[in-house]
Amino acid sequence: MSSSGLATDLPAPPYFAVIFTSLRTPGDQGYGEMAERMLALAGEQPGYLGVESARGEDGLGITVSYWRDEESIARWKQHAEHLVAQARGKRTWYEAYELRVARVERVASLRSRSTAAARR
Amino acid sequence: MSSSGLATDLPAPPYFAVIFTSLRTPGDQGYGEMAERMLALAGEQPGYLGVESARGEDGLGITVSYWRDEESIARWKQHAEHLVAQARGKRTWYEAYELRVARVERVASLRSRSTAAARR
Repeated sequence: MSSSGLATDLPAPPYFAVIFTSLRTPGDQGYGEMAERMLALAGEQPGYLGVESARGEDGLGITVSYWRDEESIARWKQHAEHLVAQARGKRTWYEAYELRVARVERVASLRSRSTAAARR
Repeated sequence: MSSSGLATDLPAPPYFAVIFTSLRTPGDQGYGEMAERMLALAGEQPGYLGVESARGEDGLGITVSYWRDEESIARWKQHAEHLVAQARGKRTWYEAYELRVARVERVASLRSRSTAAARR
């Protein structure tokens, strides 16, 4: 992930995206710390390519993580610490979520104006 | 789209997702009005299935729209009013973006606890 929050340094497609859209339950209940830990841990996994994440004022959050292949996603899903987080998520942190696994087929980009200017 | 902001009433996969991740330029400059219009207009297009959108305090926005097939996405891309909005987006509203077209292959859901309870 670049410092901007956009995942700009990924390889050419095809690769995979996990689109995780969620509504939180009220209060933190340890969520913030665990979310930070999971982002760091995901970043260490084989096949991890990057992540983009946003949560709006209405409480809807979208996190898209990118992976080399489906095997990498399946391995991360079964990671021991991640399994604990998933169980707490279902029990405590999430009111509702949708998790979609998708194969990215093509990409179009607009590069940062300031960055583009700096490169000239 | 359901009132919660989660797209929960989609057909079974496969279908397509357009993952649009962006950083805005400073100020509104007509963006809010146009974004609202584009969401409404997209919702009227053939093959449109739903949308999920969030923008965080750091300015990173993620909008994922869902479509029946690639033809629907191509048609929406070429819609006259949308073409005008795309041009203004590149020129004025976006500092940078990544747009990814992906084929959704599987979905897992956690349904709203309150909704689930009401259904019992």
